Amino acid sequence: MPTPCDTLVTASHILTQNAAREIVTDGAVAISGGRIAAVGPRAELAAAYAPAETVSMGQALILPGLVNAHTHAAMTLFRGLADDLPIADWLHNHIWPVERLLTPEAVYLGSLVACAEMLASGTTCFADLYFFSDQTARAADAFGMRAVVGEGVLDFPTPSAKTPAEALDLSRALFDHLRGHPRLSAMVVAHSPYAASDATLAACADLARRENAVFTLHAAEGVTENADSLKKTGKRVIPHLHSLGILGENCLLAHCVHTDAADLDILAATGTRVAHCPRSNAKLASGTAPVPAMRQRGIPVGLGTDGAASNNTLNLFAEMNGASLTCKLATGDPTAFPARAALDAATLSGAVCLGIPDIGAIVPGGHADLAVLSLARPNMVPFFDAPSQVVYAASGAEVVLTMAAGRVVYRDGRFPDMDVAALFREARDMAVSLAAKRP
Amino acid sequence: MPTPCDTLVTASHILTQNAAREIVTDGAVAISGGRIAAVGPRAELAAAYAPAETVSMGQALILPGLVNAHTHAAMTLFRGLADDLPIADWLHNHIWPVERLLTPEAVYLGSLVACAEMLASGTTCFADLYFFSDQTARAADAFGMRAVVGEGVLDFPTPSAKTPAEALDLSRALFDHLRGHPRLSAMVVAHSPYAASDATLAACADLARRENAVFTLHAAEGVTENADSLKKTGKRVIPHLHSLGILGENCLLAHCVHTDAADLDILAATGTRVAHCPRSNAKLASGTAPVPAMRQRGIPVGLGTDGAASNNTLNLFAEMNGASLTCKLATGDPTAFPARAALDAATLSGAVCLGIPDIGAIVPGGHADLAVLSLARPNMVPFFDAPSQVVYAASGAEVVLTMAAGRVVYRDGRFPDMDVAALFREARDMAVSLAAKRP
Repeated sequence: MPTPCDTLVTASHILTQNAAREIVTDGAVAISGGRIAAVGPRAELAAAYAPAETVSMGQALILPGLVNAHTHAAMTLFRGLADDLPIADWLHNHIWPVERLLTPEAVYLGSLVACAEMLASGTTCFADLYFFSDQTARAADAFGMRAVVGEGVLDFPTPSAKTPAEALDLSRALFDHLRGHPRLSAMVVAHSPYAASDATLAACADLARRENAVFTLHAAEGVTENADSLKKTGKRVIPHLHSLGILGENCLLAHCVHTDAADLDILAATGTRVAHCPRSNAKLASGTAPVPAMRQRGIPVGLGTDGAASNNTLNLFAEMNGASLTCKLATGDPTAFPARAALDAATLSGAVCLGIPDIGAIVPGGHADLAVLSLARPNMVPFFDAPSQVVYAASGAEVVLTMAAGRVVYRDGRFPDMDVAALFREARDMAVSLAAKRP
Repeated sequence: MPTPCDTLVTASHILTQNAAREIVTDGAVAISGGRIAAVGPRAELAAAYAPAETVSMGQALILPGLVNAHTHAAMTLFRGLADDLPIADWLHNHIWPVERLLTPEAVYLGSLVACAEMLASGTTCFADLYFFSDQTARAADAFGMRAVVGEGVLDFPTPSAKTPAEALDLSRALFDHLRGHPRLSAMVVAHSPYAASDATLAACADLARRENAVFTLHAAEGVTENADSLKKTGKRVIPHLHSLGILGENCLLAHCVHTDAADLDILAATGTRVAHCPRSNAKLASGTAPVPAMRQRGIPVGLGTDGAASNNTLNLFAEMNGASLTCKLATGDPTAFPARAALDAATLSGAVCLGIPDIGAIVPGGHADLAVLSLARPNMVPFFDAPSQVVYAASGAEVVLTMAAGRVVYRDGRFPDMDVAALFREARDMAVSLAAKRP
């Protein structure tokens, strides 16, 4: 007797990202209750399961939904507003002035656009650091996505909080608001050691410990951060954070571009995770994080797109490609960050960074978060090697179906839960209106 | 009385790439006899022209069809066959052995896939260096594309010629074959100064001069080329080529990664052009060409994707993005290669490199080679700055219509001249069969 299940998705290829990194040809994924019941040859699963619905994808590649380990979703509103500028000019004269004008409604609209962009390019889960984060959670929920969101805590006034104490209150409220949600959870966010005092960082770390949650911050992104930290604290950024006792397995540091061997030894010894954002780091000319040295030490390295003001896309296919190419350039070694490593970063390691064990691979028991790429596109022909095709040949626009928690949340340019044409009009108007109000 | 014309294409935005780099909003392009009759506000052109057909693209951006200044189209057959390898291993043990098995039919199929990929990502013209080049010309013609093709001349046996003399005969035949063609022309190709003797290079230069054609070769791509050249000739690559008298305005050098100030002075003084291939150079860890220094000297720098075995796409949107990001990283300067420079490289400078003055801009009298991007995609929202959006936010998959010489050659995933499903099956079979026959 075949076992009933909700959905059977079939395709010519499945990139499982399981422990053996198996690739199943002529395969199927059986899904029940939002979880993967089984993955294997189509003939076997078709015999073993009686699905309520069969989704036949034909010449296509199913891969785990991608995990964006670092973004600021609502910054889609500032996409293309200010590019090709020195970083200080960009921040002080363009991004910060317009950020001050943000409202909950603006963050909601910008986050909706971001969710649409991520789902359309195969990302099913993201870690978001910004302001009015409950609105980003609301946007992710509207699209049926998975997300970990956090309210930015800074020593300066933010659009949502006048003081770090207020921002911490918002953080606590966010934990309460999202507790028990099947797809959404909260994390603690301090902007960075240069924008948050030691006391603020300690209070954030304390909240993260009590909530057993991820604590994330920007670290060692810019060229001058270590020199500034040495002047202020007598220590480089990573040793300084270590001395505050905030590094560890729940700590996710974004960027870590300017990290030396001693810094990396500390990250490895403490089990700290890194969100690598290669294209943002390239676009702002910050540099290339020493990813091979991180991997050698076993540091989990996820991939983040960063916000759309510094990338300018939230497309993890472009990011996997950029991660590999920038690493090869920085090391002069074409074997330095192979396609498989980029793929692992955007799936399994992303799951580790976010502390969500059941995503990032197509394995029985895991969440049914999937992306399906059409192989009937010119740039997917021929098809010798799935990881290479995903990282080097795909643009992300080959994604024809995205599933989160067992539901189809994107298919062939359409979102079942959202009229995106109306959304895009509203978001364009909001972006133009914010830009016009800049001082 | 309105003037009759063949087609009026309308869209919310037109990126003209004219001398003033004007962007027309709510615009139209009038087309007659494969050429642009006028470009301007939609209302004005609608009153002035009586088109046989109106193509209304709505919320969309029209830009000049992109120009790929360096590729090996048929190498799509080797896409993903061998990646993440040291360059010598990649070439000697993977690419060269399988290249030896190439046949005219294989080159035709691989080139067809390449043309489909280029048209679907907005490229309307390409410069191709390979073997059995008449087959690449045939493929471009089958899709209605524009191309400049050349038969590779080497001192070693090639799949198409046992000796350089034979390859030169094929080159001459190619000129005769394509003479007078409205969209196709021939150029002269010597592989490189390390794979062609001084005598062979001189014979190639001579043929190019007599045909008043482009002479193109690979130069200073790899890390060891200058040292090797010094040992063999007593000169670095560029001074050596200069001493042979082959540099000049008809000379297009691909890569030029390892070029110093003296080399660039020679390129500038001789009017030599460069085909910059940043993503291939990154993937093979060859380095980053000093593009800002080239631009400062007024050296025309076009953009090439290189072949699909080393990129692995033929997508100039990805290449524009890669050109900008790799340059910012290499220089540490976020202003080093702005979006406008990348766009110029893929349009106007590409036209200069290929010696085709009437492409690369939407101006009256120019060829009607256009790409149209939908702005109704999440990653195109909002829309502040057209060059920034094209270079940093677009993936190339936003292209919904491509026109060459006034004809629609791609629209919404379909090619009017080709059953690509059948083509892709044949090309996959051919690729697998070649890979299986490798020694």
